[in-house]
Amino acid sequence: MTIPDPADVHAAWLPPEAFRALGSRRVLVHGDGGLVETVRDEVAQACDRYGSGGDRSDGGAFDLVLALTTAEPLPGAAEVVREELSRCGGQNPDALGPEGFALARRDGVTVVLAESGAGLLYGLFHVVRLGESAFGDARPVERHRPAMRLRMVDHWDNVDVHPVMGQVERGYAGGSIFWRDGALRSDLTRVRAYGRLLAACGVNAVSVNNVNVHATEAHLLTDRLGAVAAIASALRPYGIRVHLSVSFSSPIALGGLATADPLDSGVRAWWAETTRGVYAAIPDFGGYVVKADSEGQPGPFGYGRSHADGANLLADALAPHSGVVHWRAFVYNHRQDWRDRTTDRARAAYDHFAPLDGQFHDNAIVQVKYGPIDFQTREPVSPVIAAMPATRLAVELQATQEYTGQQRHVCYLGPMWSSEVLGFRPWGDGGPTVAEIAGGAAQGGGMVAVSNVGDDPFWTGHPLAQANLYAFGRLAWDPQADPIAVLDEWMELTFTPSATGDPELLRRTLHAIMDGSWLTYEQYTAPLGVGFMVRPGHHYGPDVDGYEYTPWGTYHFADRDGVGVDRTRASGTGFTGQYPEPWSQVYESLEQCPDEVLLFFHHVPYAHVLHSGSTVIQHIYDTHFSGVERVAEARLLWEKLGTAELVDPTTHARVTQRLDEQLRCAEEWRDQINAYFFRKSGIADTQGRRIF
Amino acid sequence: MTIPDPADVHAAWLPPEAFRALGSRRVLVHGDGGLVETVRDEVAQACDRYGSGGDRSDGGAFDLVLALTTAEPLPGAAEVVREELSRCGGQNPDALGPEGFALARRDGVTVVLAESGAGLLYGLFHVVRLGESAFGDARPVERHRPAMRLRMVDHWDNVDVHPVMGQVERGYAGGSIFWRDGALRSDLTRVRAYGRLLAACGVNAVSVNNVNVHATEAHLLTDRLGAVAAIASALRPYGIRVHLSVSFSSPIALGGLATADPLDSGVRAWWAETTRGVYAAIPDFGGYVVKADSEGQPGPFGYGRSHADGANLLADALAPHSGVVHWRAFVYNHRQDWRDRTTDRARAAYDHFAPLDGQFHDNAIVQVKYGPIDFQTREPVSPVIAAMPATRLAVELQATQEYTGQQRHVCYLGPMWSSEVLGFRPWGDGGPTVAEIAGGAAQGGGMVAVSNVGDDPFWTGHPLAQANLYAFGRLAWDPQADPIAVLDEWMELTFTPSATGDPELLRRTLHAIMDGSWLTYEQYTAPLGVGFMVRPGHHYGPDVDGYEYTPWGTYHFADRDGVGVDRTRASGTGFTGQYPEPWSQVYESLEQCPDEVLLFFHHVPYAHVLHSGSTVIQHIYDTHFSGVERVAEARLLWEKLGTAELVDPTTHARVTQRLDEQLRCAEEWRDQINAYFFRKSGIADTQGRRIF
Repeated sequence: MTIPDPADVHAAWLPPEAFRALGSRRVLVHGDGGLVETVRDEVAQACDRYGSGGDRSDGGAFDLVLALTTAEPLPGAAEVVREELSRCGGQNPDALGPEGFALARRDGVTVVLAESGAGLLYGLFHVVRLGESAFGDARPVERHRPAMRLRMVDHWDNVDVHPVMGQVERGYAGGSIFWRDGALRSDLTRVRAYGRLLAACGVNAVSVNNVNVHATEAHLLTDRLGAVAAIASALRPYGIRVHLSVSFSSPIALGGLATADPLDSGVRAWWAETTRGVYAAIPDFGGYVVKADSEGQPGPFGYGRSHADGANLLADALAPHSGVVHWRAFVYNHRQDWRDRTTDRARAAYDHFAPLDGQFHDNAIVQVKYGPIDFQTREPVSPVIAAMPATRLAVELQATQEYTGQQRHVCYLGPMWSSEVLGFRPWGDGGPTVAEIAGGAAQGGGMVAVSNVGDDPFWTGHPLAQANLYAFGRLAWDPQADPIAVLDEWMELTFTPSATGDPELLRRTLHAIMDGSWLTYEQYTAPLGVGFMVRPGHHYGPDVDGYEYTPWGTYHFADRDGVGVDRTRASGTGFTGQYPEPWSQVYESLEQCPDEVLLFFHHVPYAHVLHSGSTVIQHIYDTHFSGVERVAEARLLWEKLGTAELVDPTTHARVTQRLDEQLRCAEEWRDQINAYFFRKSGIADTQGRRIF
Repeated sequence: MTIPDPADVHAAWLPPEAFRALGSRRVLVHGDGGLVETVRDEVAQACDRYGSGGDRSDGGAFDLVLALTTAEPLPGAAEVVREELSRCGGQNPDALGPEGFALARRDGVTVVLAESGAGLLYGLFHVVRLGESAFGDARPVERHRPAMRLRMVDHWDNVDVHPVMGQVERGYAGGSIFWRDGALRSDLTRVRAYGRLLAACGVNAVSVNNVNVHATEAHLLTDRLGAVAAIASALRPYGIRVHLSVSFSSPIALGGLATADPLDSGVRAWWAETTRGVYAAIPDFGGYVVKADSEGQPGPFGYGRSHADGANLLADALAPHSGVVHWRAFVYNHRQDWRDRTTDRARAAYDHFAPLDGQFHDNAIVQVKYGPIDFQTREPVSPVIAAMPATRLAVELQATQEYTGQQRHVCYLGPMWSSEVLGFRPWGDGGPTVAEIAGGAAQGGGMVAVSNVGDDPFWTGHPLAQANLYAFGRLAWDPQADPIAVLDEWMELTFTPSATGDPELLRRTLHAIMDGSWLTYEQYTAPLGVGFMVRPGHHYGPDVDGYEYTPWGTYHFADRDGVGVDRTRASGTGFTGQYPEPWSQVYESLEQCPDEVLLFFHHVPYAHVLHSGSTVIQHIYDTHFSGVERVAEARLLWEKLGTAELVDPTTHARVTQRLDEQLRCAEEWRDQINAYFFRKSGIADTQGRRIF
């Protein structure tokens, strides 16, 4: 296999230079079959490029051995590691699992062992990440296994260009890498390269079309299945399974049935037969993704059935083939009356799904957005995650920056995903984290990110947004990883230091720009967890009242006296009661509620004093001035980097252009938010700064 | 010629029944040429239908004579009228003018005389309007001449469906009657029927494409001219000239020139030659309509030239052919910074155009929107109208209800056009009215309405919206006409009383619903002339802050203390200074400024007491509750009409559906506006009604 290398496309975190350490070593790849060949080809290309000649050695002396645990015979050092593994495996012969690997360095030989080609491939990319340090001091045996079985990227790509949403819904990086103007692209080189990037950060599943399944896209399940099979073939060498978003009403739209009732035997037979057809074409097909009874999509409610009935219908069709259905919990009334204060969109997913815990079949995974609303910059964790112990859960993140700057703003989401979501403990200290719940519940759920990738030369529009996709994969593999260390990894791989430049300056600058960029974004946008002050429709830029009087259920209730949503049990919508203790009480309590989500849970006067010591109104002013200042600083830092010639001019120019827009937009946010709240509150900024 | 009668299309104000009085008489049409033949054909069809056999009589006895003043010989009564006319004409032999007619009834014969076929056609439709009363008592000679030479309807129709704006920009009645999916419709029967309707209310010019001239539409000037010629042919029998919106950059886009500089000789030659081509195809072509340097359209500013330079370029090309250019004064900065309080969009047209008075060539007409902003429900009259005495001016109205309910709400605009615009006296009592300025300035300008017509079976979506088009034509002909009398005319023509029903009930109900509907619409929408509280983009329904922080220059500056735009010279933008006395002083003065435009000119506290005795905030609450009540009453009245079977079921159902939506939307307006201002002001409704 030729390693894919699409023309005029940025190499992201796999530039040739990343393979220098490995490619200049003597490497043995030992084993056969599928992904082992990919490992062998990767090694061969690296060694061809960097002079070692690859998979050969002088008289059996290797610097690196990548081998299946079943391979025979292994060179001495590798054999020692294998024996040690075998001993430690003890009563658990499956110690490495289907995707894990072991790494050690003994007697000057770096050894990677895996039970499968997939594990070996992940081990190879681990060696790439380690670079020269993989070949330094001796290393004891390390075992690496992914925390999550399913590490999936969902593409909201449309086959036909949608008249409003375009080729990619909520896509900020050009068109789709799969689809163009109604059909599969003819050249899938880029898709193969994408698979390679995903494998290198640990992703093992891709859903290839929008969860809003429009007319043409529905046919991917049947007469357009060939296109899905072609994508599957392109991604298979990198261990990535393909999933498909399907419409719940497919039996009607495609099968000509009179109903899509999940309990109807004809419907069940249609799905079984149709799914057999899918597996005949794609034997390793991953499964279905479904958005049902949500924002206009059809679903089981139309037949008086529950979402468990709906999910199980598809799960049963997939079960004989070991496929899974990802059933989204994003179900709410999007035609709410803003006058109705009793309906609370935040409650909806829990109200719909928690009562169904235990009713979902083994291969049904309930896919839950991380927050109760919709991918806001700051939300509390969805209470659904703690409410379904007997259900496989996947946590859905949004790499595409719909609400976090749309890949025009630098906003590194790793810290948010890591500390606010994956590390959150719904039952408090001592209880499991969200990552542990998703990784371990029932047979294990997984992590899902909505993709931020398009046909843009930089993949993600903003070159620095690549880090979000990378971090998603790495955190899905290891949710305990430090997101700043992951960012460092990404920098090291992505930015090849020039011979003349100062690589530390580059790294320092990128950290200064990116580490806190999510918090910076939060500072200049909606305050204190209140969310949704974006322009309706496109969701970019500020519009404080944009959603305030709409049917979408996203309100802030600001008046001349105060702001925020009362979601307490005492006087509000009772949403706090969906959390277990301690959070149920913490969020309920005005005194205990963390500042950053205060307005998500409470309606407070502008003069309310935060834990920080500031008032709500002064906090709004302070953070908005400060956020813009931080963006201005980031822009200056990046500018200096250009002078230092540490980044290639194309990348530098693109990032500069984006930072210019980010600064403009941040100022717009600052001035609109400050003006809005000053006009409402009448309270002056204590520092007398300019508010319009 | 067959009188056009498109299938499945509502007859509007020309149902067969409207011709009963005429058709059952003995009628002589005397004269030859163009439009006289149309008169003859109309008469023939009416008489065929109603039994008199038309243009024949028993031994020369006629009930109605329609004759050119040059026709010989005339029957006795007609001859007497002609002599009287000739005597009174005195030193002004052109007394009736190219479109006028005289009407009299002598010796049992109704006589219509005109100097032209056009005049005779207008006389015919006048007889239709009079119905039986045309054949009653003797009538002295009445002379009828249009007050305006140009009475034009501008279609904002696109040839290609625009991705955002659709087939008709700001169209609320389906697709275009001219264009469909990129080409001229093949069957122009409906266009001919449209011409007939327009002639029957006095319109004599139609512009066939959107003033925002997109790529395809630009070609109507050259290689797609055949389509325009075909429309011209369809409209010609009813005396309607075709005009064309053109792009100022046509010399570049179509001619391949390097510039569109109006002073460039190559550009001037290109326009001259291109215009010769237009007249070769359409000898009676009316002229060009131009939106330049406005909302993204190209214009003379791009070349450092004035709008007089731009307009004169096209005027000179048109002059040899007696064509005119309508040059729109709608020029403003639509990329304003909302933070910048010194820029006032209301000032823009005056600032750009007033200094150019006297520089426009004789066949250039400056087309001015009636208000300084953009077709709001209530605006003061544009100061441009009083500022250009040496320029031909056309006043532009908007029949399409972009900001007045989008033809889902009943909003009869006749009273607004009549009393607020056409009857307004910029120099106070004793000075000329806006209508007199437009009718008389220099060689006379005209009136223009943006069309509200589409391919909807009722022409205008809302059947009652037909009245706006009708009233526009009638007011353009006679601006002093009472708009309620015009409405009555329209009702009489449009609604054929059934044999069994009570026609007075129908008339009473329609008046109750329509007479005050504009004021009702004003009541439940933006208050006191502040304008623009609509949803951005589509402009339907409320969004108080929707435009508040945008680049569009349409702000209300509401804060917790008050609301309104300070446009005074004393402390605001100085816009009041663009008016002559007395209005300059009246608008400047908080005491004298009329309540209905108070917030257009002043920023006042919510407790400010209006002339009405109410406070601003209480006025907001009161009018919003009252406006909704009025809509609810109208809906009930209309419902009862269905029971009385006075309206055909299709029409009744359509109006019912629209009234349901109007009530829903009015409630939405009421609740959003009241909630917004209650949240801002904190001042309770004195009547304790429900505010959310």
